Amino acid sequence: MEVFTPLSTVTWQEKAAIPRRVRDESVAKVEPALQGLPDELPLNSQGLPKIVLTTRERELTEKYTVKELLALLHSRKLQSEELTRAFLRRAAVAHAATNCLTELLWDDAIARARYLDSLPHPVGPLHGLPISVKEHHGTLGSNQQTNASYVSYIGQPSGSTLLLDILWDAGVVHFARTTQPQTIMHLETESNIYGRTVNPYNRNLTPGGSSGGEGALIGMRGSLFGLGGDIGGSIRCPAAHCGIYGFKPSVQRFPNVGGKEHMDGTEAILATKGPMAADRDTLELCMKVVLAAEPWRLDPSLRVAPWVPYKITRPLKVAVMWWDGVVRPHPPMMRALREVAHACKAAGMKVVDWEALNHQKGWEIVSGLYFPDGGQSIYNILEESGEPPLPLTDFIIKEQPNLCAERDAFRTAYARHWSATADQDGDEVDVILCPPNFGAATPHGQSRYWGYTAIWNLLDYPGVVFPVTTVDPEKDKKDVNYAPVTTEDKFVQELYEPDIYKDAPISLQLVSRRHFDEKLLAALVEIERALGRS
Amino acid sequence: MEVFTPLSTVTWQEKAAIPRRVRDESVAKVEPALQGLPDELPLNSQGLPKIVLTTRERELTEKYTVKELLALLHSRKLQSEELTRAFLRRAAVAHAATNCLTELLWDDAIARARYLDSLPHPVGPLHGLPISVKEHHGTLGSNQQTNASYVSYIGQPSGSTLLLDILWDAGVVHFARTTQPQTIMHLETESNIYGRTVNPYNRNLTPGGSSGGEGALIGMRGSLFGLGGDIGGSIRCPAAHCGIYGFKPSVQRFPNVGGKEHMDGTEAILATKGPMAADRDTLELCMKVVLAAEPWRLDPSLRVAPWVPYKITRPLKVAVMWWDGVVRPHPPMMRALREVAHACKAAGMKVVDWEALNHQKGWEIVSGLYFPDGGQSIYNILEESGEPPLPLTDFIIKEQPNLCAERDAFRTAYARHWSATADQDGDEVDVILCPPNFGAATPHGQSRYWGYTAIWNLLDYPGVVFPVTTVDPEKDKKDVNYAPVTTEDKFVQELYEPDIYKDAPISLQLVSRRHFDEKLLAALVEIERALGRS
Repeated sequence: MEVFTPLSTVTWQEKAAIPRRVRDESVAKVEPALQGLPDELPLNSQGLPKIVLTTRERELTEKYTVKELLALLHSRKLQSEELTRAFLRRAAVAHAATNCLTELLWDDAIARARYLDSLPHPVGPLHGLPISVKEHHGTLGSNQQTNASYVSYIGQPSGSTLLLDILWDAGVVHFARTTQPQTIMHLETESNIYGRTVNPYNRNLTPGGSSGGEGALIGMRGSLFGLGGDIGGSIRCPAAHCGIYGFKPSVQRFPNVGGKEHMDGTEAILATKGPMAADRDTLELCMKVVLAAEPWRLDPSLRVAPWVPYKITRPLKVAVMWWDGVVRPHPPMMRALREVAHACKAAGMKVVDWEALNHQKGWEIVSGLYFPDGGQSIYNILEESGEPPLPLTDFIIKEQPNLCAERDAFRTAYARHWSATADQDGDEVDVILCPPNFGAATPHGQSRYWGYTAIWNLLDYPGVVFPVTTVDPEKDKKDVNYAPVTTEDKFVQELYEPDIYKDAPISLQLVSRRHFDEKLLAALVEIERALGRS
Repeated sequence: MEVFTPLSTVTWQEKAAIPRRVRDESVAKVEPALQGLPDELPLNSQGLPKIVLTTRERELTEKYTVKELLALLHSRKLQSEELTRAFLRRAAVAHAATNCLTELLWDDAIARARYLDSLPHPVGPLHGLPISVKEHHGTLGSNQQTNASYVSYIGQPSGSTLLLDILWDAGVVHFARTTQPQTIMHLETESNIYGRTVNPYNRNLTPGGSSGGEGALIGMRGSLFGLGGDIGGSIRCPAAHCGIYGFKPSVQRFPNVGGKEHMDGTEAILATKGPMAADRDTLELCMKVVLAAEPWRLDPSLRVAPWVPYKITRPLKVAVMWWDGVVRPHPPMMRALREVAHACKAAGMKVVDWEALNHQKGWEIVSGLYFPDGGQSIYNILEESGEPPLPLTDFIIKEQPNLCAERDAFRTAYARHWSATADQDGDEVDVILCPPNFGAATPHGQSRYWGYTAIWNLLDYPGVVFPVTTVDPEKDKKDVNYAPVTTEDKFVQELYEPDIYKDAPISLQLVSRRHFDEKLLAALVEIERALGRS
């Protein structure tokens, strides 16, 4: 990568152009070059791969789950190089459609794949699998830099990320790096460096954020497995908006050291990294591989907690949270809840209602706690280069009072609220089924209500997002008689016009008590079975 | 308890006299009254119980371990009331000797014991056992107030403490509440309310702190099992100074909610409660009983981590930390290390040296992090009543820079340092054997070096303290040729004159990696066996 020498005469715009050039040059390496893309891109990008890719490339990127690909790679029925080349080209298509990449690792990925193919035995459980990763995590196997979407950080080297060290040892091929928004604290994906990433189902809508590059890329099957991070919804929101699977574990479980972040050392609300994937089983596979490496031996922030798969021995008790008392979900989200609740009942599960316990207060606490210094450290980084804060940056940064004691009281009240669900029938609620957002992906610049994901960050309840349906203007008509109950609700209701969201994915979120990560993924299997999925 | 109505005309001294009167009236209830105590108390209080107590009272309080008492209680060979009365009287003796109580719960304890005796079956594993507790934790079964050693807090009701709820359900009898220092942040025990608590082996020395009331009481066998808290040594320091056992678990394991603390919601360095006991087995018994109640269901700060006893399957690899590179331990402490290291080797364990990794830096970080607000919240509480800060309060409170990132880097470096101990022979160090302090209990007002305990709070490594020997001026001569290496070291070396510490307990500390609490207690069993103990 080009080395940047800071000069006081360089404007932030000139500086920001450097990583864009790196990105463009990296994508231009694609061989054979992409041909056939229309000059004017369609609203929905899902048809583009068919125009550009070969039948074999489409077979390799569409036909298999990650587990199936790994079986082919391990048995040497498939070479990593062929697979990697197919995903490199499909990722380039996804980028042309959605602006989801910060770098395509063409040379490094092919060299790594060839090396793995040359070995007599697989190096680990993920031998030869191409994976994508959010830019600020950094990647191994190359002389990478990470800017974390700050112009000030451009040109700084990337440290080694423990998570990626582990995956590397397990045999992955890094082939694509993906976009995140300024501050990595928007539920959309726009920065002064890379511009805006759009939704692969509808370019007028956001892919979500902050792991929106991963969302868009995996939503195009330009990658089947990637890594994001989540402190307020940054894995679950883009997973939901792009119709893929995303898992936010309880914090302090998945390695965090390495990579580039602003505000290292703050901890009022902790972030966690986690997997995003085209299929469900890859989420648990990722947890197993990473925790088998005992990451707590090198990252002392982690709990010593091996991954112990959970066995469900009685019908689940599923609580449905129809809304959070602040912002009513849009009609397609309500329909998804009804459909899944119905399927759970039909499969013999207990289905009850979940009473949201003062989520308005929860949102006030968590949004106040994101920036213990009132955002000053972020504004300092922005000022260093002169790049302007984006509107969604100013939106999320506020002054904060000392809210940690309120946070702890809220957590305690919620724990008791959950325990009390066993009072009547002796069975405690196992999981909460709830929206991951008030609706489908929003039009750009409108993602101002984080409550449906951030509440679970406040409580540190693990959450997993899974696709359910898509917006159908016929089925999901606007309720013109609904009277909004809060200012946020009014804003959100006004965002809904069915035609704007046509075909956008609608996903749901499943949440369990803190530290019951394994149980949560086991419950998702049961619920997807109830939906008739394998 | 008397209700206090705040009046602006009341001085802090008048206000502070109220809980002292409560305490004195509570101790005066002892029946029969204590007789035979000398007008001038001896330097060493260990002989006093023999003067005052009956043979039967001494048998009940001296002859048995907690496990043996529980067996007698469960089989009804012993009534809780008789046992409780014996400990009530012995606690009164301990208080007369050391000033360790804030309240003796005469009526409540006897009523509770009678109630338990009246039941057809034991209510739980601790049925009928009298236990003591640090004042600020509060107790159940009575209309308690807690002042946490702040004059401003006098008259405030105590909330329910989850830890004590659990022990109550397991059958304990609360019979004594014990002293802590102003701010609960001294390694001694002195407050403007209750004055100074002294060491039961030498009244010129401190019992340690902040759980110094527990240390002195259990050091007199005025209780066999009590509860303390530890953020910088507050369990381990008084346990060491008073010749008893004390266990600081990894944080977020043992319930914390309830009780009275200043600075709720701060979390740069977390405190934990933990057991203090006259015998080793009671530490693990306490952990088992408390974690069997699944406290994480009600205290969401806790890890979901049941107590799973650890089985040691190969000879331990014990690292001995002879000193921390900042302050050299006094001669009796060095002798204790030599004696125990020798016994471990003789028992077939691997014994290696531990290189202290920049503990000076560690102390700078942890002492800076104790007061994220620079101590302002504490000074505000003091100013509210007008009570003056004690010298050790001003000592520990300093301005602090943003040290959380340095803390995390230090933790990561130390984790890698520990993992590297397997590099040469493939065996990682299991436990570190180290001093819990630079020496025996200090003369009053001199406990200004916390490094030997606080470093493990910074790292969140669990630590357990066990008695080894006592100061012997013949064996533990001053090394007059030693040249101190730091200012702190000079201060500490000047504190040592063998005769000052004659007969004072010398204890050692065993430390394991974070979250290996069960392994740590299992290793202590092995090491005590190597010392010829059961």
